[in-house]
Formats: sequence, structure tokens, C-alpha cells
Amino acid sequence: MCLCILTESLKHQPRMVLCGVSRQILGSSCGAWARLLQRQSRGCVYSSIHGFNQEEIREKLQAFPGGSIDLLKQESGVAVLTINNPSRMNAFSGSMMVDLEEMVSQLENWTDCKGLIVQGAAGTFCSGSDLNAVRAISNPQDGMKMCMFMQNALTRLLRLPLISVALVEGRALGGGAELTTACDFRIMASGSVIQFVHKHMGLVPGWGGAARLVRIVGSQNALKLLGGALKVDPELGLQIGLADGVLEVPGAEEGAGTLLQQAENWLSRYTKGPTPVIQAVKKVVLSGRELPLSEALRTEKDVFGTVWGGPANLRALASKSKHK
Amino acid sequence: MCLCILTESLKHQPRMVLCGVSRQILGSSCGAWARLLQRQSRGCVYSSIHGFNQEEIREKLQAFPGGSIDLLKQESGVAVLTINNPSRMNAFSGSMMVDLEEMVSQLENWTDCKGLIVQGAAGTFCSGSDLNAVRAISNPQDGMKMCMFMQNALTRLLRLPLISVALVEGRALGGGAELTTACDFRIMASGSVIQFVHKHMGLVPGWGGAARLVRIVGSQNALKLLGGALKVDPELGLQIGLADGVLEVPGAEEGAGTLLQQAENWLSRYTKGPTPVIQAVKKVVLSGRELPLSEALRTEKDVFGTVWGGPANLRALASKSKHK
Amino acid sequence: MCLCILTESLKHQPRMVLCGVSRQILGSSCGAWARLLQRQSRGCVYSSIHGFNQEEIREKLQAFPGGSIDLLKQESGVAVLTINNPSRMNAFSGSMMVDLEEMVSQLENWTDCKGLIVQGAAGTFCSGSDLNAVRAISNPQDGMKMCMFMQNALTRLLRLPLISVALVEGRALGGGAELTTACDFRIMASGSVIQFVHKHMGLVPGWGGAARLVRIVGSQNALKLLGGALKVDPELGLQIGLADGVLEVPGAEEGAGTLLQQAENWLSRYTKGPTPVIQAVKKVVLSGRELPLSEALRTEKDVFGTVWGGPANLRALASKSKHK
Repeated sequence: MCLCILTESLKHQPRMVLCGVSRQILGSSCGAWARLLQRQSRGCVYSSIHGFNQEEIREKLQAFPGGSIDLLKQESGVAVLTINNPSRMNAFSGSMMVDLEEMVSQLENWTDCKGLIVQGAAGTFCSGSDLNAVRAISNPQDGMKMCMFMQNALTRLLRLPLISVALVEGRALGGGAELTTACDFRIMASGSVIQFVHKHMGLVPGWGGAARLVRIVGSQNALKLLGGALKVDPELGLQIGLADGVLEVPGAEEGAGTLLQQAENWLSRYTKGPTPVIQAVKKVVLSGRELPLSEALRTEKDVFGTVWGGPANLRALASKSKHK
Repeated sequence: MCLCILTESLKHQPRMVLCGVSRQILGSSCGAWARLLQRQSRGCVYSSIHGFNQEEIREKLQAFPGGSIDLLKQESGVAVLTINNPSRMNAFSGSMMVDLEEMVSQLENWTDCKGLIVQGAAGTFCSGSDLNAVRAISNPQDGMKMCMFMQNALTRLLRLPLISVALVEGRALGGGAELTTACDFRIMASGSVIQFVHKHMGLVPGWGGAARLVRIVGSQNALKLLGGALKVDPELGLQIGLADGVLEVPGAEEGAGTLLQQAENWLSRYTKGPTPVIQAVKKVVLSGRELPLSEALRTEKDVFGTVWGGPANLRALASKSKHK
Repeated sequence: MCLCILTESLKHQPRMVLCGVSRQILGSSCGAWARLLQRQSRGCVYSSIHGFNQEEIREKLQAFPGGSIDLLKQESGVAVLTINNPSRMNAFSGSMMVDLEEMVSQLENWTDCKGLIVQGAAGTFCSGSDLNAVRAISNPQDGMKMCMFMQNALTRLLRLPLISVALVEGRALGGGAELTTACDFRIMASGSVIQFVHKHMGLVPGWGGAARLVRIVGSQNALKLLGGALKVDPELGLQIGLADGVLEVPGAEEGAGTLLQQAENWLSRYTKGPTPVIQAVKKVVLSGRELPLSEALRTEKDVFGTVWGGPANLRALASKSKHK
């Protein structure tokens, strides 16, 4: 399902049926955010007007099962999404792509969300697409449909009103490297590597990884990373801005959950505070990075209107009075 | 008053009446710049077609007096704008917002301008909105109108055909931090801090500070600064690109004007030269940062046409001939 | 000739005649790239609908002969373009501007291209426009026509489906500095300088150098470089991102070709691999830097479709099978 509410589509009820998620979001959230989404309708990647038939590709993908995408929503408002297919280095089977889209829908409908950590199972991040699924759909038409499906899911992931972090342990390869760019931040564990290996497979990114990478590290670095299939370790990651933080992998005696705990600590600095305020922070930064200046300013004003005079704001004002 | 000359508005005389400043600018400046403004009409933030009634909000703001915004136009072509409300750490009263808009109008009409330094009075920069004014307009509708007023003024400030610097001494907090992003450069005095404290007030920026911050430091740094309400000192400022220079605060015996003098020296490196050339430099950089590539290229060509074969260019050509 | 296929122009055959190159490209390349070009038609800088008459300005430029632009297409798929006018520090005569446009057309039609090195002859890069030609066309109308001609040529150079490097030895001044920004990368030889000297000539860039510079180093650095006419040496170049690599100038005994050889080695890291894949890498990065996110995503999907299931991809898949 697509986040977009195309102005045109508002005139065509059948198209709205495809956009069930959007309506839920519009229902559950502020008018300002709805307007942002409407503005971003041009930014909505694929819907039926692009000849995209989500059900058709979903069925095709379901034919290649294996692994799972697991979502843990925590009381803190921070969810953990785990790419889980350890025997294939967490490569995406077809059914995992379908899973991912469903987990994104769940997150879109979780009104209390503030943060998200995306990680891989069993000590590594993700190695892209499962070659078995890949071989079966190796004609360009199916390949592009798979891209449309994944681009929609990852674009919706990036636009969630929460602060997201890819926790990279081990290897993030190919589509796995692309997945890291669909989060707001990337934290790399010591010894980890992000590598756009596409060239070695005779490919370029197709899940939106190139478009997003250019926005994160600039076009020259993107050209180097893709053209050279360079291995990005934590040091290079920090230097070019692909990594936003580095964590030491804990020793064996400290337990498997420790790295995730460290990532949650890292993230908590930015998610601490009332949910509507953290969501508003993400929304103004999101509109700032996606929209032309004037549209970003108008969205910022709208989002500001959702917190100005709100409970957290009034509490802060009252507390300031007391101190005087 | 709004800088925009909406193509649509050209058909509707009443709207033009609201745009008195623009007509003056168009009258006093080159056709190329006028075309840039026309192109940026989409970039003009609020006018009557956005339901924005400047007189209404101006009257509302005037009801909260205190402090002043002082403008000193110097013969050098460099003006100094001082945020002056020391008893409130230079917080903006309502009347100061109105003052600011008037000073921006004055600068728009100053044909000899080349540079601008924005500073706070009495050793600190600006602490945002005066809480007294804020409490009185704490409903979302009025809050958004105040944002529209301030966004218009600050967008016009950023687009002035001069090179502007925020000289940050002491604290730039909340709206004060946002104000620094409406200048081309930020110079931080030793010991100074820029902090988007909005989260602690249950808020996000609303004067355009988020949209502009993303453009200055990138979206990841912006998310950190806003989500974490981080204190940016000069060292961090230089590292992430929020600060473009750092100055040592002079000792007491050197006199209060010395820091300003240092800032003027810093700026003079970039403003030295004929006024039309310096203004053209700002215009091509402004269009480069605000417009899509092809539009920026066309504007650059137009601005180039205003100096090519002009007095400074002919003098330089003649001087080169002599040396041969 | 202009790369653009304006949607409007498709209705007007006469305009198509001006776009001969485009049709050749469309004929020889994938539908995806053609769609990208169509999308970028808004990004196509000047055609007859902008009142641009290429033949008229071409004739005017031909009246100022001197020097040449030399193109060497190598079997490796990497071409070398040499700005050759040593007695004028490789300044552009009028006929060299015409040459440049023709060499870009040749590169557009070279289906096997993967890389390009742009260099100057005789140990220096390029000192901009030849003052003799410049004086003769010093009226604004002709100046702007010259800009339109050069902006078209340089924009087409930047958009070639290959990875391009400006190899800067000696001085890149004025228009020469602008030329470096029309390549994907800039490598500076030790002792070299890139300097936007335009201010000293009473000018600003007009060949698109300002618009492109803002995209490479950000608007604050661009304002410093243009406003201060700063000399950028390799160290400063690396620091602000204007230089992507630095090479040691070889000693006299090592021969004149050694620096070029070093540059080819540097570039080969990014051009090694099948031609369609390298071209696809450039295309996804190009669309990433020029297009809004959603359009960039759609283009990425289209480009992905040109390599997915292609020969290089199938070979890689087969090789992975064997290793299992």
C-alpha cells in the first residue's frame, strides 16, 4: 500500500482503496502531517497510476519463502526490526520482502512510536537478495516490479514519523547496504562493513539505495562507493558521513543483547521526550530534506502548529513561570 | 510585505499593492534579479493567497512591546543589525518582530549594501521569543501566524543581495538559534553556544530554522541537534559546518567594539570590491542553493549579464591590456 | 545541439531538428536513459524555446580562432580531452568553445565510453576565456549568448554516461575553474591551484560554475571561494571537497605522460568492469544528484532494469552457483 494521496487520486475512489494505510494515517494524525503527505504525493514513488500492481508482485514474491522480518514494539516507543534469515546471511527471500512491507504498515499505525532500530539476526546485518529468488525473477520486467515494491516499502520506512537507526554488525552487502540508507542514522559496530557490491554482480542499486546514498554522502562519494564497490568500515563511514556513530562489539561474556542495548542508549539521546514532540522533530527534518525551501518552510509551520500550545509546551511554559 | 511577484498575482492588481517592497526592488535593480525573484515566487513563503494577512498579525505583535532592533548602515556598505533587549537576553518581544521586518525592508531598499552583521546587544546573541508574548498567543492559530510573519522576514533576510554573518557571542537559543540560520555565515565567539532548545519547551522550530538547518549541516546533524537539543560550541560548530569561523572574545581592556571589529575584518575578505560584483556573487550562490540545476544555470547567466561589460569588468580588462 | 527532448518539443518537428544528438542517443541507448533525459528536459538548459540560436553564436565564436580541443578515445573506454592553447595558458578562444561542443557530441555518440580525463596541455589546466575574444564580445547580449553556449556544452559534459575527472595541473583560473566543476571528480596535482578569479575581473561565473560549485562544496564554501576569489590548493581542496584526490607531480626524468598515467590509474578503480554497468552507475548517481527523490527513485528503477538479467549479471549469477 502506498502512502501517497495524489491530488488526482482524490477524484478517483478506486485508487483510494489501494491507499488504505494512508487513510489510517490521515485519520490518526494531525492535519499538518496529512498535508505534508499530500505535498509528497509527487514524492510517493509508485501507485496504480504508475502501472504498479502491488498484489501481483506480492503474490510473485510469496512464491519464494524463507526467513522472516520480526518486529518488536517496546513500551519505550522504540521498536526493533530484525532481518532474520541467518542461514543466508539474512538475505531477503521473496516472503521477507512481503513481510517488510507489512511491518512498515504496522509501524505507520503505531501512534506511540518514537524510535526504531533495524538490525540483522545472528551477528550480521543483511546480504541483500536471496540468490534463489533472484534467479527466478531475472527478467527485467519482474526485476523492476520487485524494485517498485521494495522502493515503496523503504521510502515509507524512511518517512515514518520516528527516528530510525540501522545497527550494522557484520556485513551489510548489496540490498543490505541499500536498506541502511532507508534509516535516518547508521551505527556501525567495530569490524562491520557496508559495501555496495552491486558492480560485482553486474548491477546497480534498484531499491533506491543510489538515490538515498547521494543524499547522505554526496554524489562524489556515492560515485566512488558504487563505481568501486568500496568496503566502508566504521572509520571510512564516519569520515564520509555514512556512519553516524560507532559501537564496540561487546565481548562474549557480556551477552548477545548488549550491542542492541548500546544502540538503544545511543538513540535515546534523540528520542527522550514527549512522543508528539519527537515525531514533530522528525517531521520538520524530513520535510527539510525532501522538499524545496518554501514548501519545507510551510510544512515546518504546520508541524509547529501541532505542538505549539500543546500539553508539553504548556507544561514547559508553566515550569518557566515558577522559576521566575 | 512579501518579496514575491507571483505570476498569478501580476494579473491581480490588489495583490500587487501588498507587494510594495518588491516593486521598489524591481525598480531599483536589474531585470535578471527580478526574474530570479519571479522564479522564486514559488519560493516566496506567504502572501494573501496563503491566507496570510500581514497587517492583522503585525497589530497583534505590536501589543507586546519591549526592546528594539537597531540598524546601522555604514558607508562601507556593511550594515550592523543589533537584537537589543538585554534585560531578556535579547528575546524577541512582539514589537521587535515587527521591527525586524521593517529593518529587512530598509536593507532591501539600500542599493549600496554589500554586507551585514547580525549581533545581539550586551554580550549575548538572542534567546528566542519573549515568554510573555509567547504565553499570550499560545493558541495554534496565532502561533502559526507568528511563524508566517517571522518566516517571511527571515527568508527575505537570507535572500538579501549582500553577504550576511551572524556574530554569535554568548547564547543563541531557540528562535535565536533559528535566526543564525537566516544568515549566509555564522561566526562564533569563543565560549558561545548555539542551541536549538525547542524540545525542552515541547516545541520544534517554526521560524524556518529546521528547513534552513538541514540545508546547512545536512539532515542527520539537524536531527541530532533538534532531537537532542544539543549544545553547539565553536569546536562542534566548525566540525559540522554550523560555524564558518571562530573569534577570540577580546579582553576587557580592548573595548566592547573589538569583537564586532574582528567580525567586520572577517567579512571584509568577501565583501571587498565593487558593490554590483559582490551583490552578483551573492545572487549566483543564492540561486545555486535554492533552485534546481537548470533554473540556477539560467539565473547565473542572467546575473552574469549584469556585470559583463559593466564598469568593473571594463576597468579590469583595460588594466590587463596595459600589463601586456 | 541540445540534449533535451522537451515534451512540448515533441509536438513541434522543427525543434526536433535541432536535437539531432538527442535522437542519436535515444536510438543507441536504453529506453530508461531516454526517459531520464526526457525528465531532465526541464533540466536542459537552452534550446530554441529560450530564444537560443546555436548557429548564430557558433558563427560569432568561430571568428576568434586559436588553440584546439583534442579528444583521444582509447580502447580502454577512457577518453582524454586536452585543452590545448599553451601560449595563452590554455585560455579558451572562440573556436575552442565550438571545438568543445563538438567533442562533447562525439563523446555522446561513443557507445563504449566508461571514463574521461579532462586536462590542459603543457603543464597547466586552463585560464578561462581568451581576453582577445572576450573584449570583442563585451556587450551583455553577446556575453549571455556565449554563456548559454558554454552552459549547454558543459551540462552535456557533466551528464555523459561515463565517469569524468578533471586532472588539474598548474592553474585552473576563472572559466578554467568552472570547467573543473563540469566533471564528476577533480584530482589536483601537487602545487596546482583552482581559483575562481572572477571577482578580480569584475565578474561572476557564467558558464554554470557557481551553480555547480554550490552543489560540490555547499553554499557557504562557494560564497567564500567566489566572494574572496580564494586560491584553492590541494590541501584546501580536499578539506572542502573540491578535490577528490591529490597526485604527486612526477620528476622530469619520469616523463611527461606519467601524471596522466597516474590519473588513469586513479580513475580505473571506478571504471573497471563491463561498460553497461559502469554507465549505469553514473546514471543512477546523476539522477540522484539532479532529480527530486521520487523521480530519482523511478529513474534508478529504470536503469536497474537495463542491467538486471543482462550479460554481466547472468555471468555473475552463474559464477556464484559454481562456488556453491
